[in-house]
Amino acid sequence: MTDKKKGQAMANVSVIGAGSWGTALALLLCKNGHDVTVWSYKEEEVRTLSEKREHVSKLPGVKIPNEIFFTADLKEAVEGKDVVVLAVPSIHVRNTAKKMNAYVKGGQILVDVAKGIEEDTLMTLSQQIEEEIPQADVAVLSGPSHAEEVGRGLPTTVCIGAHTETTAKYLQQLFMNEVFRVYISPDILGIELGGSLKNVIALAAGVADGMGYGDNTKAALITRGIAEISRLGVKMGGAAETFGGLAGIGDLIVTCASVHSRNRKAGYLMGQGRTMQEAMDEVKMVVEGVYSAKAAAKLGKKYQVSLPIIEEVNKVLFEDKSPKEAVNELMLRVGKAEHMALPWEE
Amino acid sequence: MTDKKKGQAMANVSVIGAGSWGTALALLLCKNGHDVTVWSYKEEEVRTLSEKREHVSKLPGVKIPNEIFFTADLKEAVEGKDVVVLAVPSIHVRNTAKKMNAYVKGGQILVDVAKGIEEDTLMTLSQQIEEEIPQADVAVLSGPSHAEEVGRGLPTTVCIGAHTETTAKYLQQLFMNEVFRVYISPDILGIELGGSLKNVIALAAGVADGMGYGDNTKAALITRGIAEISRLGVKMGGAAETFGGLAGIGDLIVTCASVHSRNRKAGYLMGQGRTMQEAMDEVKMVVEGVYSAKAAAKLGKKYQVSLPIIEEVNKVLFEDKSPKEAVNELMLRVGKAEHMALPWEE
Repeated sequence: MTDKKKGQAMANVSVIGAGSWGTALALLLCKNGHDVTVWSYKEEEVRTLSEKREHVSKLPGVKIPNEIFFTADLKEAVEGKDVVVLAVPSIHVRNTAKKMNAYVKGGQILVDVAKGIEEDTLMTLSQQIEEEIPQADVAVLSGPSHAEEVGRGLPTTVCIGAHTETTAKYLQQLFMNEVFRVYISPDILGIELGGSLKNVIALAAGVADGMGYGDNTKAALITRGIAEISRLGVKMGGAAETFGGLAGIGDLIVTCASVHSRNRKAGYLMGQGRTMQEAMDEVKMVVEGVYSAKAAAKLGKKYQVSLPIIEEVNKVLFEDKSPKEAVNELMLRVGKAEHMALPWEE
Repeated sequence: MTDKKKGQAMANVSVIGAGSWGTALALLLCKNGHDVTVWSYKEEEVRTLSEKREHVSKLPGVKIPNEIFFTADLKEAVEGKDVVVLAVPSIHVRNTAKKMNAYVKGGQILVDVAKGIEEDTLMTLSQQIEEEIPQADVAVLSGPSHAEEVGRGLPTTVCIGAHTETTAKYLQQLFMNEVFRVYISPDILGIELGGSLKNVIALAAGVADGMGYGDNTKAALITRGIAEISRLGVKMGGAAETFGGLAGIGDLIVTCASVHSRNRKAGYLMGQGRTMQEAMDEVKMVVEGVYSAKAAAKLGKKYQVSLPIIEEVNKVLFEDKSPKEAVNELMLRVGKAEHMALPWEE
């Protein structure tokens, strides 16, 4: 672990979930010299990936080396591994963790790379995992990282959050290479809140784009959006620095800029006049931001934090408010100081 | 000033400089019901604008109302005005201020809307203005605000910094309307540093784009870039909040996203293999970031703050370092904690 350049000790790593992000991380870990297993619950997918050595639908054109082993056997994927990366969609995390429990030994390191907040419990994904697998050492990885770009080896930086510096540093050397720069942080909660709540702001940014507004409007939404997320996150126990960092503003920027983001896309369609349901039907995939919007509003109430953008998004989503009216309301709110705490000269 | 909705008292306002930003702000102030004069040092330009009522080269397609009065007489533009907006290019600010001095009475409000740092003195523009016109009450206006979009009436938010809350609130009601939202702040220095130093990061983002890197790389540069600007700015006396706000990250986002930014464009060309001189020749206009890069590096030395991205930009600009090598160096720096001050559980 001390001599990074010469290559860290080889580790046995599994990735749970063979979506685009799971596959991209498996490729990265394999390139870093680790022994990599990828689990999928679909036997068919395991067979296809093992044979074709390409994820045609999720990461087209990227070759999967023969060294990566695919399995549908969860026990085989989890038991005895140095590190298990959880890359299943957020709604499946709790259930997958529950099934993994029997194979996880005390102190085994699990890294969650999905993002979301459970609507009923308002728990983050790592909190759900810790509830289901109390013996695990749970960490998270987040930041501005489109899977397709990581798959293609484009320079990317992320942040890993862990309970102890030892685990964080161990994971850092495991993932880091010349095109994948890893920062570490103890603020797991802040990292997870940034990653989940950003989708609501991406929806709003999409709406503004769909209405034909410009870069000024979008930059304002991003800037005031992260201020809102930060106010809530700090009240919940996250660190302000995190929201200004890679897992906060960094991830928000990449999501709002992306033509691939489903959240931004759904917002775009609504900005063009579609209803929420029409937009979701057209995007044809889970629009995480719609669920996060509800959870965020609940959190705002629970922690008594004013979240003007998130509240307007909820009104547009669930109360048929017109996007134009929502934007007008945001622009016309009484003029304020940008940062209330700063003192004036007189 | 208390009843915003009914329209604040009409003010006599001048805009010094008839570029795209000056013209867009003149249009905004006129729409808000103020009496607006625009000064240009070119008599020819004054004549053309007065007659054509359109700024064909800078804001094509936007009609200039007959109520806006153009003049080349600085005394006429400055004397007795309630507010004078300084919208000349940064390199002309000191000289213009010097000429204005004789016409400025004690406590008269001047609002600088240009951005830059004087390379020799390392002074911001408001500091230069205060040196040249000590009797003035100097404020600044900054934020994510492409002139073309403000000219077209697209929703925009900015931040006004002033010494006193009274001046800040007066200017806020002067500029604010339903598509132009104004926040206020006492942190003039932070606002100016954010606006000036962002151009260096925009150059770096352009280089990354030119090299074919993706959104991940750009988001990382923006996020780590504002962290760098913030470290320096706080050491110089700015407030950390400002760099996370509209005049910091907000303005940086809009500049890095823009296809119009000369800084981003020059960087893009260098990323594609041109030398700095070739890139500047092709952009054909002042590339502010090239000068700011030098000033920023000097400030880093003076205040002993590590500025890895800004230092690599300087090496690419002035030491013929290849952009690829510069990016590699940034990616391979020893793995770090993202925010040094956060404590670990053990």
